[in-house]
Amino acid sequence: MKQHTLLMPLDMHLHLRDGLMLENIGSLSAYSFSGALIMPNLVPPVSTKEELIAYKERIKHAIGVEAADEDEFDDIGEFCDDGGFEPYMTLFYQNYDENFLADVAEELTAIKLYPAGITTNSEGGVKNFDIEEMRPTLEAMARMDIPLCVHGETDGFVMDREAEFMNIYDELATNFPDLKIIMEHITTKAAVDMLDKHANLYATITVHHLLISLDDVAGGMLKPHLFCKPIAKRPEDRAVLLKIALEAHPKVMFGSDSAPHPKEAKESCGCAAGVFTAPIALQLLCDIFEKNGKLDNLQSFVSDNAQSIYGICPEFKEVTLVQEDFKVPETYKGVVPMYAGETLAWSIEDVD
Amino acid sequence: MKQHTLLMPLDMHLHLRDGLMLENIGSLSAYSFSGALIMPNLVPPVSTKEELIAYKERIKHAIGVEAADEDEFDDIGEFCDDGGFEPYMTLFYQNYDENFLADVAEELTAIKLYPAGITTNSEGGVKNFDIEEMRPTLEAMARMDIPLCVHGETDGFVMDREAEFMNIYDELATNFPDLKIIMEHITTKAAVDMLDKHANLYATITVHHLLISLDDVAGGMLKPHLFCKPIAKRPEDRAVLLKIALEAHPKVMFGSDSAPHPKEAKESCGCAAGVFTAPIALQLLCDIFEKNGKLDNLQSFVSDNAQSIYGICPEFKEVTLVQEDFKVPETYKGVVPMYAGETLAWSIEDVD
Repeated sequence: MKQHTLLMPLDMHLHLRDGLMLENIGSLSAYSFSGALIMPNLVPPVSTKEELIAYKERIKHAIGVEAADEDEFDDIGEFCDDGGFEPYMTLFYQNYDENFLADVAEELTAIKLYPAGITTNSEGGVKNFDIEEMRPTLEAMARMDIPLCVHGETDGFVMDREAEFMNIYDELATNFPDLKIIMEHITTKAAVDMLDKHANLYATITVHHLLISLDDVAGGMLKPHLFCKPIAKRPEDRAVLLKIALEAHPKVMFGSDSAPHPKEAKESCGCAAGVFTAPIALQLLCDIFEKNGKLDNLQSFVSDNAQSIYGICPEFKEVTLVQEDFKVPETYKGVVPMYAGETLAWSIEDVD
Repeated sequence: MKQHTLLMPLDMHLHLRDGLMLENIGSLSAYSFSGALIMPNLVPPVSTKEELIAYKERIKHAIGVEAADEDEFDDIGEFCDDGGFEPYMTLFYQNYDENFLADVAEELTAIKLYPAGITTNSEGGVKNFDIEEMRPTLEAMARMDIPLCVHGETDGFVMDREAEFMNIYDELATNFPDLKIIMEHITTKAAVDMLDKHANLYATITVHHLLISLDDVAGGMLKPHLFCKPIAKRPEDRAVLLKIALEAHPKVMFGSDSAPHPKEAKESCGCAAGVFTAPIALQLLCDIFEKNGKLDNLQSFVSDNAQSIYGICPEFKEVTLVQEDFKVPETYKGVVPMYAGETLAWSIEDVD
């Protein structure tokens, strides 16, 4: 039976929410991932040092892991730590001043920019992209080596929103050549083409955007559990995303964008955006990479590239997957996962 | 207060279903329309004379109108009859022989062609479009002046399906110049462009495709009650549809494609396709045409054009609408209508 071991898998785009939802689903990511970049779009969004630290504590508490004590780090070992799960924290982008950034820099891994109102809980985001208004913040971030993660969509026609955002990426990358800019959850050939245009552009890709197109969301029955933002695009777009993921393009990382909503919020007359994949992401990725004869590249896609791009040293974790049927539960504590009730070809056998 | 009277409104594309659903919703169409072209995609589809007659009887029974006795017709009046609602019946397209068609011709108004599996209950439809296989049936239909109504979608990418079907319309219209071909529920500029290419091509347009684009279905929250096939397309497509509807292009008719599903079938993990508009269609059309200064053209769009194209003489009905708020019910007997709970600008004041 085929096996595959992943070292320190990282989910570089994760929604853990807060309160009861966090407590219900946080441990699912903590089980199989070594760390994850935690999105800040709570209500209200995470935008102060105090909120950021408090949210990290709530996450650590919810997943049953006390906040890491830096003294315990094994400085001479191959890995920074010998267990657990690291929530790499992000702030919600605003025009912050340099003193504030200097004060909070140690606590965060990146700052996440949302255009105002473009997705769940993003009302306080950027209303226009006036480069000069943003310059002090973005230049300070570049000096401090704080990456900027971007939800790159305009408010245009739903199938065009990401492609229309490309000139904003272009402008940001050109104006701030020392700023690391992560194009989050890219879904289009346009974004893949943009990736190599600027040295300072990177990208995350979800597992669902490697698997589905708009046909899966709305081509047969309408599938609320596959509805997300950015919406899944054309099969040609998916093919291009799959290609760079499979080759583990060094500027590309896995980020699930796993986004839990209660079942009732998905199966209703106005379904919230988000696909919940955290507990099945590694199983799906093994299947995709194995089927395409690229299993050897999965380690880079799911961990090594992110370590290089972010300069992070994740908690040690060894996840062994096996090519054995895994029946996806109908729900995880009231949240319906992608492929609920279906059988996946790979299972997680062991986590060390 | 602005009023507008419509004479013999016709819905030239209507799903009345069967059994309890038919009994629950049939009278809503019968109330405000003089007649409707009834789609045959029951399970199993309506494909024999006996089934067609029996289905018509069930419809008449459900809406509380006995089957019309031809002897009662007022031959000298302006209109064929003095009340009620006429279900214009259709057969589900198969390759029928001429004798069968001759026998059933009196009972039907059109034959509806579905590509196999393309929408609700269409599994028994046409698997390929082999013109020579279809020739005997289509030539017989042309001789008998039986129009062919077509659900024009391929099994391609959901946003391309209608545009990809255009070469089949082209081929059908070219090969059967004496056959009236109705492009049902068109949603794209491609279909509008096709309309004037052949003298024997006509089209129906729904009210929801005049109002929504994919943005309304999946641009904000996902809206199952706006999910239909063909799916709503781009704003540019909607603009072109609106233009020919407002000018009451003589080859274009209103057909609601109103398609009821129980609320649970729409708000679930796999939502069925169909927008339920029958009880609000005339109110919406008045609003659209009035806002655009084209209220005088609505009579043609909603009745006169269909009378000319089909050569039908509908039951008399005079529907007076008034520019007065109408709050759309949350459900009609378990079926959620478009704009449930919202307030429309026009109401039906009186039906004679």
